[in-house]
Amino acid sequence: MEVAVIGVGITRFGEFWEKSYRELITHAGVNAIKDAKIEGDEVQSLYVGSMTPGVFIQQEHIGALVADNVGLSGIPATRVEAACASGGLALRQAYLAIKSGTADVVVAGGVEKMTDVSTEHATVALAGAGDQEWEAFHGATFPALYALMARRHMIEYGTKEEDLAQVAVKNHSNGTLNPNAQFQKAFTLEQVMNSTPVADPLKLLDCSPITDGAAAVILASKEKAKKLCENPVWITASSQATDTLALHDRKSLSQTRASTIAAKNAYESAKLGPNKIDFAEVHDCFTIAELMAIESLGFCELGKSGKFTQDGETSLKGSKPVNTSGGLKAKGHPVGATGIAQAVEATLQLRGEAGKRQVEGAHTGLTHNVGGSGATSVIHIFQKEVD
Amino acid sequence: MEVAVIGVGITRFGEFWEKSYRELITHAGVNAIKDAKIEGDEVQSLYVGSMTPGVFIQQEHIGALVADNVGLSGIPATRVEAACASGGLALRQAYLAIKSGTADVVVAGGVEKMTDVSTEHATVALAGAGDQEWEAFHGATFPALYALMARRHMIEYGTKEEDLAQVAVKNHSNGTLNPNAQFQKAFTLEQVMNSTPVADPLKLLDCSPITDGAAAVILASKEKAKKLCENPVWITASSQATDTLALHDRKSLSQTRASTIAAKNAYESAKLGPNKIDFAEVHDCFTIAELMAIESLGFCELGKSGKFTQDGETSLKGSKPVNTSGGLKAKGHPVGATGIAQAVEATLQLRGEAGKRQVEGAHTGLTHNVGGSGATSVIHIFQKEVD
Repeated sequence: MEVAVIGVGITRFGEFWEKSYRELITHAGVNAIKDAKIEGDEVQSLYVGSMTPGVFIQQEHIGALVADNVGLSGIPATRVEAACASGGLALRQAYLAIKSGTADVVVAGGVEKMTDVSTEHATVALAGAGDQEWEAFHGATFPALYALMARRHMIEYGTKEEDLAQVAVKNHSNGTLNPNAQFQKAFTLEQVMNSTPVADPLKLLDCSPITDGAAAVILASKEKAKKLCENPVWITASSQATDTLALHDRKSLSQTRASTIAAKNAYESAKLGPNKIDFAEVHDCFTIAELMAIESLGFCELGKSGKFTQDGETSLKGSKPVNTSGGLKAKGHPVGATGIAQAVEATLQLRGEAGKRQVEGAHTGLTHNVGGSGATSVIHIFQKEVD
Repeated sequence: MEVAVIGVGITRFGEFWEKSYRELITHAGVNAIKDAKIEGDEVQSLYVGSMTPGVFIQQEHIGALVADNVGLSGIPATRVEAACASGGLALRQAYLAIKSGTADVVVAGGVEKMTDVSTEHATVALAGAGDQEWEAFHGATFPALYALMARRHMIEYGTKEEDLAQVAVKNHSNGTLNPNAQFQKAFTLEQVMNSTPVADPLKLLDCSPITDGAAAVILASKEKAKKLCENPVWITASSQATDTLALHDRKSLSQTRASTIAAKNAYESAKLGPNKIDFAEVHDCFTIAELMAIESLGFCELGKSGKFTQDGETSLKGSKPVNTSGGLKAKGHPVGATGIAQAVEATLQLRGEAGKRQVEGAHTGLTHNVGGSGATSVIHIFQKEVD
């Protein structure tokens, strides 16, 4: 219990042609500072996750840009990138900065502006999260890579397309309860199953959308949090691991090694097991990704994630609510912002401020943020103040 | 003295159409591990600085890519970006990771592959280091931004074009002594003065080149360094600061505020002043940048950098040798690699392994890495083992 979240801010996620990249992150950052009830000059350092602003909006040097726009120019400001896990890494670097003793109040933000370019352009940009030379160059875009993993999971474990579809049904149901979600609309299993094929067996409603959005959290050292904040949420584990960049180099296509390593390390750090996790935000960039995630995290046995989902265990009223925010699937997936948005949801749940999607009695939550087809995984465990 | 450099690796800098991005960083990384005389599995975490690989080679997710190619897949791997200060930030994050107590052997690398695209494309990519909306969009590329600063310095302090040119003469002279430098050719003051105008008052030979290259250093905690290494070089200060992204928001065009803040903090951390610095690698992306740097660093009085340079104080045999490696000007400037290459030079100098460009009796060195037109500045101080 050395690092706490003392404030959170988030934009609505969606397609915002009238808002710029810098407006989005400024909105989230300023709101996080307000939520923490601190002055900007108490912030000593800033990290921001963003995947590919150079391609989306021809802008790099994102740390300085954000510090400047949020009114914090002068302090150290660092952008980190690990494709769709960029936000999770920003959170982790902010956590490490506090642990290093060099700062005691740090902002971690995440942002992406994806809808100013064509869908084709965005698809090419996102393909840079995989292996450009061995995957993207040959036409393997992200739906194709995850379709390979889904097919392998089906072959090895008998997972059905309906199991995948049920993830979408659940997450869209949760999304209707989140006023910041990109899609606040429920779908039936039949609607998901009948949606347009994208990369067999994945259909349109198995895929997360292209999204604009930003999120920010304020972290503080124990001493500072005790002084500044009445309802700190403690980060009791921060872990990160990698796997090979390209799918073809992996021993298994149906398991994500980086997440398995990161989960093991996170549980050891927090001194608890998956049975103690009351809810989780996991990286459901495609429905199959959520199934693989809950297996890596030990929420169910390997190969049993389909049944676990169909049985309603991961639904809002189930034994292990997953993606209460609507997940990437319904809340939206502004890639650099996603890892931070997960931390915002965990904080709101633990403060009891998650409104209609509140998990009753939640004490411990987990966030799981993945880059590419699984080459980066970042896991954080959040716990409520214990008296 | 909590963090040490225990190994360094670098590629030659230049235009390498036959070498890929991943080959360059793998070469540097593997050589740093060899130089440290450790096994790869002793490395616990990896940071890599790269400015804009998404634009240059359509590849993001650089941390995982590098870990994978260097044979370290599994460990946490994080890319950081702050335009041309990306390498310096990678070094700083690696330093903070060790200070946080979460790792005791960490690699910091930097890489850029800039020559696979046209010069026009590269100019647009680099413009993302400034303010896209307020500078680049209106045609203000980097030579133009630094030309504005040079002109202002000339107006305020009477600095002459010959003073700028002398920086190039000195750095190219040093470059002839560095077998890894892109340009190993001396120029006379007359040649620099007569080179093609780029953005008045800057001429072709006032500008650093477009370069491919990579560099890596291995950092270790005090305890680990004492065990693993016979000739550790200690990092006694790591500091970072920001300024506004766009030039028009600054109070002064002839001074770089981020560097002034970072220098002050670095000297405080290391408990020494500029008079104790035996040599420095500073960010001479343009000749005017070196002049502004040595003023920010307190090597000479404000406005006196031209005379200080003309008097030979910053030359290899002067009182304060600057850019013994040849600097960005002659060694080359693969933007993401530059900050790490500076650390490699500092380490070689302090180990007494800098060959013909060795600064005799060097005990303390400083590196100064800047992003954009000065919105990010990262400074590190390195010191030789003291018995």
